[in-house]
Amino acid sequence: MAPGRLDEAGGGAALQTVRDEVITKTQPSSATTMTKEHDHVLKTYRILIADLCQQYGMGHPGGAIGMAAIGVALWKYVMRYAPHSPEWFNRDRFVLSNGHTCLFQYSFLHLSEYKAMTFDQLKSYHSERADSLCPGHPEIEIEGIELTTGPLGQGVANAVGLAMATKNLQATYNKPDFDVVSNHTWCMVGDACLQEGVGLEAISLAGHWKLNNLTIIYDNNQITCDGSVDMVNTEDINAKMRACGFEVLEVEEGCYDVESIVRSLQQARNSEDKPTFINIKTTIGLGSAVAGKAAAHGAPFGADDVKNMKKANGFDPEQHLVISDEVRAFFADLPQRGEAFVADWKDLVEGYCNAYSELGKEFQTRMRGELTKDWRDLIPQSLPTSPTASRTSSGLVLNPIAKEINSFMVGTADLSPSVNMTWDGKVDFQHPNLQTTTGTNGTYAGRYIHYGVREHAMCAIANGLAAFNRGTIRPVTSTFFIFYLYAAPAVRMGALQRLPVVHVATHDSVGAGEDGPTHQPVELAALFRSMPDLLYIRPGDGEEVAGAYAVALGQRHGGGPAIISVSRHKVPQLHGGGGPGEGGLTSRDGVAKGAYVLQEPADGGHPDVTLIGVGAELSFAVELAKELKESRNILARVVSFPCWRLFEMQPISYRREVLRRHGQEGIPAVVIEPYAPNGWERYADAGICLRRFGHSLPGKYIYGHFGFEINPMVEKVAVYLDAVKSGKYFRGEFVDL
Amino acid sequence: MAPGRLDEAGGGAALQTVRDEVITKTQPSSATTMTKEHDHVLKTYRILIADLCQQYGMGHPGGAIGMAAIGVALWKYVMRYAPHSPEWFNRDRFVLSNGHTCLFQYSFLHLSEYKAMTFDQLKSYHSERADSLCPGHPEIEIEGIELTTGPLGQGVANAVGLAMATKNLQATYNKPDFDVVSNHTWCMVGDACLQEGVGLEAISLAGHWKLNNLTIIYDNNQITCDGSVDMVNTEDINAKMRACGFEVLEVEEGCYDVESIVRSLQQARNSEDKPTFINIKTTIGLGSAVAGKAAAHGAPFGADDVKNMKKANGFDPEQHLVISDEVRAFFADLPQRGEAFVADWKDLVEGYCNAYSELGKEFQTRMRGELTKDWRDLIPQSLPTSPTASRTSSGLVLNPIAKEINSFMVGTADLSPSVNMTWDGKVDFQHPNLQTTTGTNGTYAGRYIHYGVREHAMCAIANGLAAFNRGTIRPVTSTFFIFYLYAAPAVRMGALQRLPVVHVATHDSVGAGEDGPTHQPVELAALFRSMPDLLYIRPGDGEEVAGAYAVALGQRHGGGPAIISVSRHKVPQLHGGGGPGEGGLTSRDGVAKGAYVLQEPADGGHPDVTLIGVGAELSFAVELAKELKESRNILARVVSFPCWRLFEMQPISYRREVLRRHGQEGIPAVVIEPYAPNGWERYADAGICLRRFGHSLPGKYIYGHFGFEINPMVEKVAVYLDAVKSGKYFRGEFVDL
Repeated sequence: MAPGRLDEAGGGAALQTVRDEVITKTQPSSATTMTKEHDHVLKTYRILIADLCQQYGMGHPGGAIGMAAIGVALWKYVMRYAPHSPEWFNRDRFVLSNGHTCLFQYSFLHLSEYKAMTFDQLKSYHSERADSLCPGHPEIEIEGIELTTGPLGQGVANAVGLAMATKNLQATYNKPDFDVVSNHTWCMVGDACLQEGVGLEAISLAGHWKLNNLTIIYDNNQITCDGSVDMVNTEDINAKMRACGFEVLEVEEGCYDVESIVRSLQQARNSEDKPTFINIKTTIGLGSAVAGKAAAHGAPFGADDVKNMKKANGFDPEQHLVISDEVRAFFADLPQRGEAFVADWKDLVEGYCNAYSELGKEFQTRMRGELTKDWRDLIPQSLPTSPTASRTSSGLVLNPIAKEINSFMVGTADLSPSVNMTWDGKVDFQHPNLQTTTGTNGTYAGRYIHYGVREHAMCAIANGLAAFNRGTIRPVTSTFFIFYLYAAPAVRMGALQRLPVVHVATHDSVGAGEDGPTHQPVELAALFRSMPDLLYIRPGDGEEVAGAYAVALGQRHGGGPAIISVSRHKVPQLHGGGGPGEGGLTSRDGVAKGAYVLQEPADGGHPDVTLIGVGAELSFAVELAKELKESRNILARVVSFPCWRLFEMQPISYRREVLRRHGQEGIPAVVIEPYAPNGWERYADAGICLRRFGHSLPGKYIYGHFGFEINPMVEKVAVYLDAVKSGKYFRGEFVDL
Repeated sequence: MAPGRLDEAGGGAALQTVRDEVITKTQPSSATTMTKEHDHVLKTYRILIADLCQQYGMGHPGGAIGMAAIGVALWKYVMRYAPHSPEWFNRDRFVLSNGHTCLFQYSFLHLSEYKAMTFDQLKSYHSERADSLCPGHPEIEIEGIELTTGPLGQGVANAVGLAMATKNLQATYNKPDFDVVSNHTWCMVGDACLQEGVGLEAISLAGHWKLNNLTIIYDNNQITCDGSVDMVNTEDINAKMRACGFEVLEVEEGCYDVESIVRSLQQARNSEDKPTFINIKTTIGLGSAVAGKAAAHGAPFGADDVKNMKKANGFDPEQHLVISDEVRAFFADLPQRGEAFVADWKDLVEGYCNAYSELGKEFQTRMRGELTKDWRDLIPQSLPTSPTASRTSSGLVLNPIAKEINSFMVGTADLSPSVNMTWDGKVDFQHPNLQTTTGTNGTYAGRYIHYGVREHAMCAIANGLAAFNRGTIRPVTSTFFIFYLYAAPAVRMGALQRLPVVHVATHDSVGAGEDGPTHQPVELAALFRSMPDLLYIRPGDGEEVAGAYAVALGQRHGGGPAIISVSRHKVPQLHGGGGPGEGGLTSRDGVAKGAYVLQEPADGGHPDVTLIGVGAELSFAVELAKELKESRNILARVVSFPCWRLFEMQPISYRREVLRRHGQEGIPAVVIEPYAPNGWERYADAGICLRRFGHSLPGKYIYGHFGFEINPMVEKVAVYLDAVKSGKYFRGEFVDL
């Protein structure tokens, strides 16, 4: 297919056919014109939404109703998609960032005949059905939904990620006459998405990158939960968006004027070098008694009001949840049109593969969500044996993989010098015209992403990259561990969607040093260890770093994200240096099990204590075991414990064998980790942990300041073991040392 | 003091006196003029910064050096403060949002003769001294520092909070001829603060509220860690700030042109109805070999480079850390000038108290950080006995207090209808000219804050409100619990600074219902329970809500923040209805202890199990105890456990008495809470908890979906107790039921 053909197929041509008769609306203040057919479709849809919320007395009707004409413009006229081939690679992506208006999306999925979204399913919104495809916010598992949205602003950043994915793949694979990747990303937002910081960060990046394949559609109804938007926001949003590098279009009669909306959307699709922001004025809850009011937002209108809506619009007030044959007929061409898109595109790809066989093969591989090479072959077998910061080990492990496998898009929130994620010859993802003052040349084929100091957008964008065709791109993010708290809502959304994003978090624990307590992530491990479906991994040395990556990269779509939490400072390398099985203490296979026995007492005696070591402080446990033997004749086992969740996936027999805490021969376990201990009580009887915020001190003093030096730790363990023997503490009563 | 007098005292007049001789700089490209004296001071300061980083081979020199002239303009000419009365109520507030440039602030605190900031202290930057007043980022405990900053963007929002505090107090107390509150807030930012979402949210609010007493000073050096800012940001920042309602000023030669900076700052102070953004072009690391480069940001320049800097500027390369008498003399008038400000202001306040005795008394009370009434007298003694959502109870407890005591400024991130924090006759904090489309009239004396959908800025602004004179204003924030994850970095900063902000978090646990897993905060309890110095409290009914507020409101500056985590849905009221001591199960005093025995088995038999109930699900434990007795003859104690941290403050004897888990007579404890169990292992042997994300189902189905119904819970507990008896599990081995 030649470039431009889709423009004709998907756009204005279809619109002409329905302009059978023009009527003048009385409601809108201007002389907006619309067809009778549109009028009927919009009314039907609005009343359907009101009914759907009415049936169980719950839901968000107002926004979805106000967006009626936008939906018709998108699904009927502008978006290129295939309801019966919902996973079609080159489909336009649609993201509903204002996810509470989910009935908007569910209804149009139903009307455009996505197979899974039956009328029964649509009616299950807010019912008791646990298998409903109409949850309170759109979820990625549902046919036709690109990403789970709901926490406001996330969707904007997700959409930026989707648009970047398209740009990167276009720059990598498209050839003259073969635009095998040509889709557009549409992101629907409400007022809130433009107030939330994550949305603003992402908008700034979209403008910087000149993502002309991204359109943000603003449902400008000027109403939030608290009332009128001008109570909280009086900025000039159009000027702000222009300042951020967006083309700005406006539609005045957004509840009715399908034609103007279609025109704007088409103009946006054809934008030359800017993303587009379409500011569409709408009325929340149009047609209801609470139209234009906050009351229309989050509650049904009430049976009487819905009846009145029906009467006023010429519908039978006693009939509920009705979609007329006429309305169904209006949308009936969409599956067939979609299949034609798919067929054309398949032809195009076939021609492409014939013309560019190597590239075509690679493209096909990546479309299947597979990597072009096996990353396992690229993980280094041997790593330095001298003390090495685990952030350095991280680079040694990941960079050769990211360099060789072009699915990886690696980025950082402005910490390139700290995170060590740049590989030889890495090329930045930038607009081709960008020539920075430091001489960077732009190409969208670049796979290193400078996100600026925007951690939250970085992680939400990474979710978008991962969700694009689910496996074609493997995003990696990086910043200081503490700043993953800025990004935590996006990390969470990645976990909820089981997107295999890898987050590389350096400067973990108080080892971060002189930056002080604002930068020392005392309580963050507890957060990420309790976040479902996320692997929080603290590797202890290079070998464990390799193990952590092996686990994280082994995740596929439906697996989930991982945080690899590495040290700023040099840590002793406990591995033998020769790679797996070469006699060192640490083991990459051990990491995969979450925890493993690092060493038993040398002379085979019955151990007095198990020391649990973790991550940057793993070597403390090893040193402590040595010193306990030498100075107190206390025999200690050492367990390395990089990841709770992986350990919990092991059979109970393995877990008991590693910990040996319980029963007659039970050995008390002491964990050493300068983090909040919360949760270690499951695996240990006592902890040398940190129950307060950190302190600004250089790395060489910080551990000592908090008692993480060998002598005080020897003393603490010895005193504790004496106290246990003397019955001061009960077994199972966790003690903070 | 009449309005305007300070303008003359603190501003341009002083500048005239030092314009003894004008020289033309060769470095700057334009014909910027400056005095020899300024030239010497700036050079001395820049070399001092280079030396301070050089001494321990660590630190951030570049930004601080680039900001030299801004510092002179602020501390010498424009800011009104009193080095020897650092807590002077009406001082200008200065916030260093780009906190890594802390040497900027420390140096000017030293030069302007803050007593604590001795030269020895200044030299302790990045030394081994744990008592250093020069940590890696500014900390609130240090004389002359208003707030702890460092995580980028926070400071912008903090400054907005400080400026709001001034506005609110002005509107409440100032009278014609008596501007007893007239200070300005200055916020220094780098590129990053303008990229971070929290900064952008706060900027939008500052513009909306027309905070003309706020100035954001942009150190525009166009360099971030990764290189040139235009790699990541090409927006038109001036246009963006104008769109957000800011007046924009520019200074071209920001490294030299003290005079232009002073003029801009004074213009900003006199801004009529907008906050001001001053875009000042500077060169990072000016004078060093890495000037204008990212390398100047986060590492010392090296001994040779520092020597060269000294030579080039006519300083002795062998001398380190030198401040000449001439430079000291330049700043020598500042303490005296400051004391004159204080004396004038004290006179003004004295006259005010004479003229307005009632108001004066109140103003004095609030300046002491005290409340005008005792909130204890306003907490309701009796509360509804019928099932009540704890968010409703929360309003019943807090609203009368917030209404009566004007220290409270209560806000919400656009969830007024959900959080129940509005009191009868509440007035919004708004600009006096604001007349919204829904009819809100503006006054800065209003104490209800509509933050819009900006959770992160809300909490960071609340930190600023709390830090303003530390006690004069008591901020309360509110939103859904899940969205405190958006705000978590600010909640953390409040905890780190021990600011007594109260966060009211509704829709906690999966009880949030049909909004689905994006809105159900499974893992958030674990985060906030492990965050040091924060009280995370989940009250079980109205009585416990009263107890939670009693604890939270009892916190003073230096105490810390609290999150009161309340239910969306109605929960049974377990209190007797008559208030404390009236025979109900729940107890507000019990909340203060963190956990307490709710009931022992009725017939005095030896209990088989302790059920731990929490918050919205507390009644489940009570019902379960009843059913276990009736259907299985299992005797259960019930413990209510609203707050871990409060419980951990109790003596071990109390804790053992409440839990009775250990020793010969030890009773297994089962916790019931649909959150991630992480950390409950310290208090319980087994848990009916939630180790996965939630699900979208209406409230009446959601608990059942996850097994939180009586029958399955009875079965789980019975099977567990049998398994314990039969030795399937070891004691102390936590079991997920």
